[in-house]
Amino acid sequence: MTENGILHPERVLTLDTMNPNVKRVEYAVRGPIVQRAAQIEKELKEGVKKPFTEVIRANIGDCHAMGQRPITFLRQVLALCTYPELLEDNKFPEDAKSRARRILQACGGGSIGSYSMSQGIELIRQDVARYIERRDGIPSNPDNIFLSAGASDGISTMLKILVSGEGSTRTGVMISIPQYPLYSAALADLGAVQINYYLDEANNWGMDVSELRRALAEAKKHCAPRALCVINPGNPTGQVQSRKCIEEVIRFAAEENLFLMADEVYQDNVYAEGCKFHSFKKVLFEMGPKYSEKVELASFHSTSKCYMGECGFRGGYMELINLDPSVKAQLIKMVSVRLCPPVAGQALLDIVMNPPQPEEPSYPTYKKERTAVLDDLAEKAKMTEEIFNKVPGISCNPVQGAMYAFPRIELPQKAIEAAKEKGQVPDMFYCMRLLEEKGICLVPGSGFGQREGTFHFRMTILPPTEKLKVVLEKVKEFHLDFTAQYS
Amino acid sequence: MTENGILHPERVLTLDTMNPNVKRVEYAVRGPIVQRAAQIEKELKEGVKKPFTEVIRANIGDCHAMGQRPITFLRQVLALCTYPELLEDNKFPEDAKSRARRILQACGGGSIGSYSMSQGIELIRQDVARYIERRDGIPSNPDNIFLSAGASDGISTMLKILVSGEGSTRTGVMISIPQYPLYSAALADLGAVQINYYLDEANNWGMDVSELRRALAEAKKHCAPRALCVINPGNPTGQVQSRKCIEEVIRFAAEENLFLMADEVYQDNVYAEGCKFHSFKKVLFEMGPKYSEKVELASFHSTSKCYMGECGFRGGYMELINLDPSVKAQLIKMVSVRLCPPVAGQALLDIVMNPPQPEEPSYPTYKKERTAVLDDLAEKAKMTEEIFNKVPGISCNPVQGAMYAFPRIELPQKAIEAAKEKGQVPDMFYCMRLLEEKGICLVPGSGFGQREGTFHFRMTILPPTEKLKVVLEKVKEFHLDFTAQYS
Repeated sequence: MTENGILHPERVLTLDTMNPNVKRVEYAVRGPIVQRAAQIEKELKEGVKKPFTEVIRANIGDCHAMGQRPITFLRQVLALCTYPELLEDNKFPEDAKSRARRILQACGGGSIGSYSMSQGIELIRQDVARYIERRDGIPSNPDNIFLSAGASDGISTMLKILVSGEGSTRTGVMISIPQYPLYSAALADLGAVQINYYLDEANNWGMDVSELRRALAEAKKHCAPRALCVINPGNPTGQVQSRKCIEEVIRFAAEENLFLMADEVYQDNVYAEGCKFHSFKKVLFEMGPKYSEKVELASFHSTSKCYMGECGFRGGYMELINLDPSVKAQLIKMVSVRLCPPVAGQALLDIVMNPPQPEEPSYPTYKKERTAVLDDLAEKAKMTEEIFNKVPGISCNPVQGAMYAFPRIELPQKAIEAAKEKGQVPDMFYCMRLLEEKGICLVPGSGFGQREGTFHFRMTILPPTEKLKVVLEKVKEFHLDFTAQYS
Repeated sequence: MTENGILHPERVLTLDTMNPNVKRVEYAVRGPIVQRAAQIEKELKEGVKKPFTEVIRANIGDCHAMGQRPITFLRQVLALCTYPELLEDNKFPEDAKSRARRILQACGGGSIGSYSMSQGIELIRQDVARYIERRDGIPSNPDNIFLSAGASDGISTMLKILVSGEGSTRTGVMISIPQYPLYSAALADLGAVQINYYLDEANNWGMDVSELRRALAEAKKHCAPRALCVINPGNPTGQVQSRKCIEEVIRFAAEENLFLMADEVYQDNVYAEGCKFHSFKKVLFEMGPKYSEKVELASFHSTSKCYMGECGFRGGYMELINLDPSVKAQLIKMVSVRLCPPVAGQALLDIVMNPPQPEEPSYPTYKKERTAVLDDLAEKAKMTEEIFNKVPGISCNPVQGAMYAFPRIELPQKAIEAAKEKGQVPDMFYCMRLLEEKGICLVPGSGFGQREGTFHFRMTILPPTEKLKVVLEKVKEFHLDFTAQYS
């Protein structure tokens, strides 16, 4: 092999010799379209003329990057933890200072630069447990809480510990289609079997137990199904599950002996009227001991979404219900190898779990900022659905929750053929064209999975309202032009 | 299976069904002895009488937890990045503010709460490259830099991508014995073959190419050796490699087609006279194109050690030399699944790479604080070696660098038998007794690996000087009592 004129006849690590599981991993949210977006941004900077002046990245739920402002109280406490000299500064409110002092006392040597316990700082796990108790009205044990570097870390960790066997006994894990591609990526990496169950687009991306049964029966022929993953509110699909649906899923998991994984990182992002977030934990316990003493459940939360949007800090936790104590010991050992989740992220999580109370000085600002973020998202969720549904050839389910629309697009046969000629899947072809012509970066539906013959894209609703309107208008324009060109 | 009186006849995830590779993982630095230390701390709090009043944790290189103070400049810049309102505060020096502004400008939406590129913020990778260039006098390309969550993250990532094959073609990775147990843990987790090469205790834990050859020849009979890991300065052994030795290792890797991994996280922690840190990268390039255009090298650094000791922030980077471009593309894809390393850790790394310069206002304080930490460590390194070597039955190589002593201990035959009766390895038995009797938490040598029939422990030199003296005296006392009891 030559490159730059240098011979590397004996390179050790090549595409042929590397870990084959890693090669199978795909992660569309940061895939080729996002790399092309970065190139275009560079070209714009270098003065290359384009039919637009900036790339709008609506591909990833990166709140602050899209202009969402951090919650003041969170950042005040973090700044105090980072530079405790500020505890003497009377510009900082007392409630922020008391939070910071409490966190620092729980850190080795009073510094967030110390390692924490691998499972996470005990005080913070206690605060997480109390938060869960307030949310669900069900007891929570800090020993069952593991802090993590964002939810992704917790999910990957649980999937890893779940996977075993070879051939027809290899662990299978049920994931929704469409799914958030962390799941398919982690399963590919682990060499586990991905079992697809389809959400029902015609029924607002609902989860249907008969479809779960179909997928499971099919899978049992060639692997050992062991876990069922659910994302609620949905990513990329934005649906919010009803209590009834969650009950049915729990019953199914109990009957079929499946370990339940509930990805609940959008639990505060619920917008549609009549919709409410129900945690799997709460529903499980309200179904009585027949279920609550049997079903194994891991639920995940994060500081990256909701009203905080603090993606960069990599804060998160998982709660484990009915986990075998000897497996828990193994899990503690396993996470200890990476020493600890980032402590600044742990501190941030603590403040989210233990926010200002009505009697505290920071409450009014906190409340105002939090409400503003969530109201704004609710408005944009509605606007997105409405504008998309006015475009012939685009149909969009209500964005009940989370941060994404996942509209279906009709593509003319000629466009599908043109894509095939370019060696691209049709929705990638569509999104690439949209990027080149309008400077809008979306993720093709194929990156999340979709029913054969249907096409979608995922778009975040995060751009500021005025910009989001422009984005939606541009997508509309593009879609009409594209359809006309290939009809 | 029953526990707490509840029947779990159908639990999905059990010790029998879980990932068998995870079961094989061991990580002594946070193993059973550390768990017992935590219990004892709880007992002390509850008023249980012990022959000591506090547990001294000398088991892990957790600098701030042992009283080391954070470097003011690092924390000032981080506080400014966290809460940019402070940029208006004239208590902060201008050089800290300009660093913070520069970092924030490189963040999406000007917030460290945004995701970064998965490889790390480009500006910070540029600063890393410039730091490496200043250190080595050799060009460095920011595209070859990957930021990571501490060095552990980078090391695990590279090992993962390196592993493939089954049975006799399964990837083997050469690691030193004694080693830092991240390596054995990651290899067990990946199901890779661990190839042990022994450091020469009689020669100050030197690395000897003839021993590398022996280990490699042996390993080739049952696996496919592909990589060679080196820790310099050494952990747990504290030696600093000579330039000549590094050259020999590079020559060996070139001849034998091994991917080199250089763990250089203690690069500023060099204390012994006549010792100097030489990076593998620098030596590789100074050996000329025959080597510098051929040998594949990953080198690792971290913000957790050196004079910073900022373990909790999980900052770090790796530089990749001669990596196959298509493998690099795979690596970028793989790290993108976890989205990004913690951004506060990235920011911290940036300041370490780009510290105050002599003409800047923060320089004098920065310089003073940095020197104080390193001088203090140098003094403690010397003191540790000297005191240990005065104890009959303990012999300790000079602590030339890093943060640990790894003395050899002679254990009486009766003690070895008493350990066997308890089902413990002898040095675990010894360390457990030390913990119970003196409240000092060390890690048994068996957790790092050692030659059959020899026994050691690892102790950090991090406690403050006066406390370290007490620790050393207590270990001495214990060792003499223990030896007497079993003689």
